[in-house]
Amino acid sequence: MCVQPLAPSLCPHPACHGWLTLCLYATQDASPDAYGDLPMNQSQAKTDAKWTRLSTLTAADAGSTVLIRGRVHVSRGTGKLAFITLRQQSHTVQVVAAADDKTISRHMVRFIGNIPKESVVDVTATVTAAPTPIDSCSKKDIELQVQKVFVVSRNNHRMPFELADALRTEAELAGDSGLVGVSLDTRLNNRVIDLRTMTNQSIFRLQAAVGKIFRDFLQNQDFVEIHSPKMIAGASEGGANVFKMNYFKSEACLAQSPQLYKQMAISADFDRVFEIGPVFRAEDSNTHRHLTEFVGLDLEMAFNEHYHEVLDLFDNLFVTLFKTLSTEYAEDIATVFNQYPAEPFQFLEPSLRLTFPEAIAMLREAGYEVGDFDDLSTETERALGRLVKEKYKTDFFMLDKFPQAVRPFYTMPDPNNPGYSNSYDFFMRGEEIMSGAQRVHDADFLAERATACGIPLDSIQAYIDSFKFGSFPHAGGGVGLERVVMLYLALGNIRKSSLFPRDPKRITP
Amino acid sequence: MCVQPLAPSLCPHPACHGWLTLCLYATQDASPDAYGDLPMNQSQAKTDAKWTRLSTLTAADAGSTVLIRGRVHVSRGTGKLAFITLRQQSHTVQVVAAADDKTISRHMVRFIGNIPKESVVDVTATVTAAPTPIDSCSKKDIELQVQKVFVVSRNNHRMPFELADALRTEAELAGDSGLVGVSLDTRLNNRVIDLRTMTNQSIFRLQAAVGKIFRDFLQNQDFVEIHSPKMIAGASEGGANVFKMNYFKSEACLAQSPQLYKQMAISADFDRVFEIGPVFRAEDSNTHRHLTEFVGLDLEMAFNEHYHEVLDLFDNLFVTLFKTLSTEYAEDIATVFNQYPAEPFQFLEPSLRLTFPEAIAMLREAGYEVGDFDDLSTETERALGRLVKEKYKTDFFMLDKFPQAVRPFYTMPDPNNPGYSNSYDFFMRGEEIMSGAQRVHDADFLAERATACGIPLDSIQAYIDSFKFGSFPHAGGGVGLERVVMLYLALGNIRKSSLFPRDPKRITP
Repeated sequence: MCVQPLAPSLCPHPACHGWLTLCLYATQDASPDAYGDLPMNQSQAKTDAKWTRLSTLTAADAGSTVLIRGRVHVSRGTGKLAFITLRQQSHTVQVVAAADDKTISRHMVRFIGNIPKESVVDVTATVTAAPTPIDSCSKKDIELQVQKVFVVSRNNHRMPFELADALRTEAELAGDSGLVGVSLDTRLNNRVIDLRTMTNQSIFRLQAAVGKIFRDFLQNQDFVEIHSPKMIAGASEGGANVFKMNYFKSEACLAQSPQLYKQMAISADFDRVFEIGPVFRAEDSNTHRHLTEFVGLDLEMAFNEHYHEVLDLFDNLFVTLFKTLSTEYAEDIATVFNQYPAEPFQFLEPSLRLTFPEAIAMLREAGYEVGDFDDLSTETERALGRLVKEKYKTDFFMLDKFPQAVRPFYTMPDPNNPGYSNSYDFFMRGEEIMSGAQRVHDADFLAERATACGIPLDSIQAYIDSFKFGSFPHAGGGVGLERVVMLYLALGNIRKSSLFPRDPKRITP
Repeated sequence: MCVQPLAPSLCPHPACHGWLTLCLYATQDASPDAYGDLPMNQSQAKTDAKWTRLSTLTAADAGSTVLIRGRVHVSRGTGKLAFITLRQQSHTVQVVAAADDKTISRHMVRFIGNIPKESVVDVTATVTAAPTPIDSCSKKDIELQVQKVFVVSRNNHRMPFELADALRTEAELAGDSGLVGVSLDTRLNNRVIDLRTMTNQSIFRLQAAVGKIFRDFLQNQDFVEIHSPKMIAGASEGGANVFKMNYFKSEACLAQSPQLYKQMAISADFDRVFEIGPVFRAEDSNTHRHLTEFVGLDLEMAFNEHYHEVLDLFDNLFVTLFKTLSTEYAEDIATVFNQYPAEPFQFLEPSLRLTFPEAIAMLREAGYEVGDFDDLSTETERALGRLVKEKYKTDFFMLDKFPQAVRPFYTMPDPNNPGYSNSYDFFMRGEEIMSGAQRVHDADFLAERATACGIPLDSIQAYIDSFKFGSFPHAGGGVGLERVVMLYLALGNIRKSSLFPRDPKRITP
């Protein structure tokens, strides 16, 4: 083992003009300058070394020399041979070191075979075609023949769990396989390790993609991105479930949604606005689909005649989202389904729209006892999702015309059907992912509705006043980003689609 | 005056199947179906009416009939003639109603001339070439000849201030002009009205543009957008200036930056990440450039050899930002400069980079007494900005190699110059808009630095632990969105570039 320090010597590594701890046997070593531990990078030097991304490597690169920084996913040595599975995000490749007593010494091979998993290394190697397909790597048709290996950051600690275990499928763990999985709590307690799995790399690239597609679509439709305050004087969605905080000598709340502010932006003439930002719910719900902090994809727009103009835009937005994901992000989706198998997400174009009474009729026909004006429970939502999927072959639909009584005070009543409102929810795989409505834009009527719903007017005076000086008919909605990702991928738990989830029992890491 | 209600009658307006309050003299009126107040829009009907955006109208449209919804910016009537200046965001056009006792009655002209400012109206009109240029409107070469005018939402309230007054320049208000302006406090207390000015419409389109350019640039460079939690267990940037809140049965803090989490994302193999989100500072600073909540544009990336790889990327990012703004958003910039005149923003390509010792030398040469390792004060920052502008003709520069002692504990020391660090600030018009550095990626060294800086390790254990299991050299920075907008446009007060600003004395609206 190369553990004895030697006098400082010039490091041959292209990225380093520093010092290298070399083996005592260096003088007997055929390859003393080809391996070792680099000193801590403090930006000691700049070179013009060319670095390669693993994602770009193909069999066509055979014969060329590459320099790659990655993690040791697995390492093992057997005498004159050592192997590393080198990982860069979702990609892995087999690295081979074979002692030849000329450029690759036995000491070097032993050094390589002993690099701990998850260490960060710089590998200089020749790309070769793999003699047989390498099933354990994502790059199956190539290998890297080592020229140099330097450790950038050595992992000297016992891992809280093995990445391999965090990547097991339910099928692998079933029965008496002898394999162990990793519980969700253990994963989340050690989220930085957990996020390194190929599955999680893909989940969060998909999360970023959902945000990007949402934003790109809206920007192309002349929406203006806004940033509304998260510290507000009064509760934005009624007094319950709000986090309270000290604000200098007074008190404040964390915004439960940008609802009031995005509507005020419409009154302020921005015409069409959207916001992507955190929303906070002090709800003591310990379920698979509730977080105390999540990312809201919110939009609001003035319409000319009918709120269905907004519903049509939402329809296009979601169809664009589903199409873009399934075409441009197919590889990431496949990576996730590899560990968490699920049916691909089905959707229609245009999307299916049902009215609330139609949904109630479907549920009753299937034997569910539901009242005309009852809100949907988690259970009836799911049942409705199953019925819709059977009948219409879609995992996405829009449900329009909710009962007035189950919606917030600022929801516009349906002028033609007493008891109903111009409001809608959207569903993915039988769970709600968005809520929206035409809003009351008349200040007097809004104050009347707030009072009827028991909301103290003084806490929302600025909001109500914003409609006094001429206002536009408008509608909008708020989408939960983590729910969209969870349900698109059928992950089963919203914590899996939140980078560092927050629930009533978890505020760290 | 048309104030007497009549029995419900079918409204001829294309957007309405509802009821219309008509004048008692309707039977004598040549144009009873061409004007009036619409009932509150509850999405009563859908038609296939075609709506026109004012921004798209040109003299080439002369002769065509258009339907436009907008605000009454100004209205006035003189007997047989009435005029409206119709406003849609930053655009205004003159609308003319001339009584002809055939299709346009005198009652209608009187009705139009009396519509209160800021009311929302639907105007059906014929586009004509303006006989002489209309200086008071942004559309100078066209007029709209009224066919129909319906009030969608009437402003029956006294405005807290006139939009015209909120649009005055300093030059207009100087001396004994007799004109009144609107104080910033009054504006902010009535922000929804204030935001309707053309100037503010442009400021916030520019704010959205900065976010878009930032994001587009980074996404093209393979950065992944992340969303880190804002409710965290411990202070992210040290114990001072942090908002505390109740979190169920325990306590939490609001994140002062996504610093710890974006670095953890690097340890979690995301390689390059960015975040756009709110950051919170409980700092009792009542200055022109401090907010208690602002929008952070944050990025963090692993680099191969030297943190200047990150500085190079930042350089490209800011040059791209300034170029794109000055070319694609020239109209909005001109609108803002119209009210707040300023020199156009100057920049170099590539950007100017100075080292901290070089800056100290420049300041001393100009007579400022500053120590080698002193942090820059607001005053010396400004002085430096002036000196740089004189010498290099740029309003933007990067200052590299700050003294270690004035930077946070997680800043990597400069290996070659004791007392300095691998850290940088960026400046626009002599004020700091970004702070960044190479970070310490070695867990042991990081713990040592935290302890030396008096940070209790238990409050940041998850952060320190995230570097234990192999870590990448990395650097990054955080930009304040409102500061970039304020300084690019030389607005002089950060509240002008925040939609609903928060400072120690303001938590509403």
